[in-house]
Amino acid sequence: MESEPTRIMIAVNESSIKGYPHPSISSKRAFEWTLQKIVRSNTSAFKLLFLHVHVPDEDGFDDMDSIYASPEDFKNLERRDKARGLQLLEHFVKSCHEFGVSCGAWIKKGDPKEVICHEVKRIQPDLLVVGCRGLGPFQRVFVGTVSEFCVKHAECPVITIKRRPDEIPQDPVDD
Amino acid sequence: MESEPTRIMIAVNESSIKGYPHPSISSKRAFEWTLQKIVRSNTSAFKLLFLHVHVPDEDGFDDMDSIYASPEDFKNLERRDKARGLQLLEHFVKSCHEFGVSCGAWIKKGDPKEVICHEVKRIQPDLLVVGCRGLGPFQRVFVGTVSEFCVKHAECPVITIKRRPDEIPQDPVDD
Repeated sequence: MESEPTRIMIAVNESSIKGYPHPSISSKRAFEWTLQKIVRSNTSAFKLLFLHVHVPDEDGFDDMDSIYASPEDFKNLERRDKARGLQLLEHFVKSCHEFGVSCGAWIKKGDPKEVICHEVKRIQPDLLVVGCRGLGPFQRVFVGTVSEFCVKHAECPVITIKRRPDEIPQDPVDD
Repeated sequence: MESEPTRIMIAVNESSIKGYPHPSISSKRAFEWTLQKIVRSNTSAFKLLFLHVHVPDEDGFDDMDSIYASPEDFKNLERRDKARGLQLLEHFVKSCHEFGVSCGAWIKKGDPKEVICHEVKRIQPDLLVVGCRGLGPFQRVFVGTVSEFCVKHAECPVITIKRRPDEIPQDPVDD
């Protein structure tokens, strides 16, 4: 038997409807499933690594009313983004603490699928867990899917966990 | 905590080079990885379910020199196919027994990707494990991939496990 814990990286993001600090339905599901079905009572044998990739202000809508007058304003923006990501990660780290499983969490900025695969290369976890929305081919064309990319390109085994049917919002592209 | 064991279905097939009863490199890897990284010492918390899908004599090469003169000949053929599949499953069941994890194993006939997803629907495992060859897009066009189909269509979380770089044969399409 291996004595080193199995290191499971879980990619988590915020809810597209509720925003920060609420985790997306699929992140939440991926995390809870991992605890219930994989870690179970063997808490000392696993370590969970939470990666949140912050997508820098894709459309600018969040900040439509902001005025950037100095370099300092941009620094504040960055600080605020970081604070939001931290709030998200806090949710998962707290849950791990309650469950009794050791964990780590960090934030990176960029294109989620590229960053996740890059971090897998760097951290070399035993397993990458990605939640996915389980979209049909038509919906997929417009939103792309991070999970598909990771299954193909991540240099470790990948588990994809779809949302439960009763958790799918009216518009399946929401999460 | 859940008291029911986590039921992990593992799709296994024979080696394309060595034939029956040798498991393919990716089946072997998927199985060993599952024991080492997921089950670990918590053997009573998991049950492994091995599904082998027998592809009925795709090209007929195996039986080029056979003469089928009566319905009985076809029955013999079926018996032989079944015996080959059983030998393959015996390998995995034996290993589980040695490892101390409970298991079940069965054979179905048909198109692997369709049958695997159908069996997931019927058996409702907590997790489906499929090995994959990790082919590039060019190779994939010709061989299709069972794992990609299962990730999209299986009604349970799916883990895909690529072969280790040092296990990849000269022609990556081999397994």
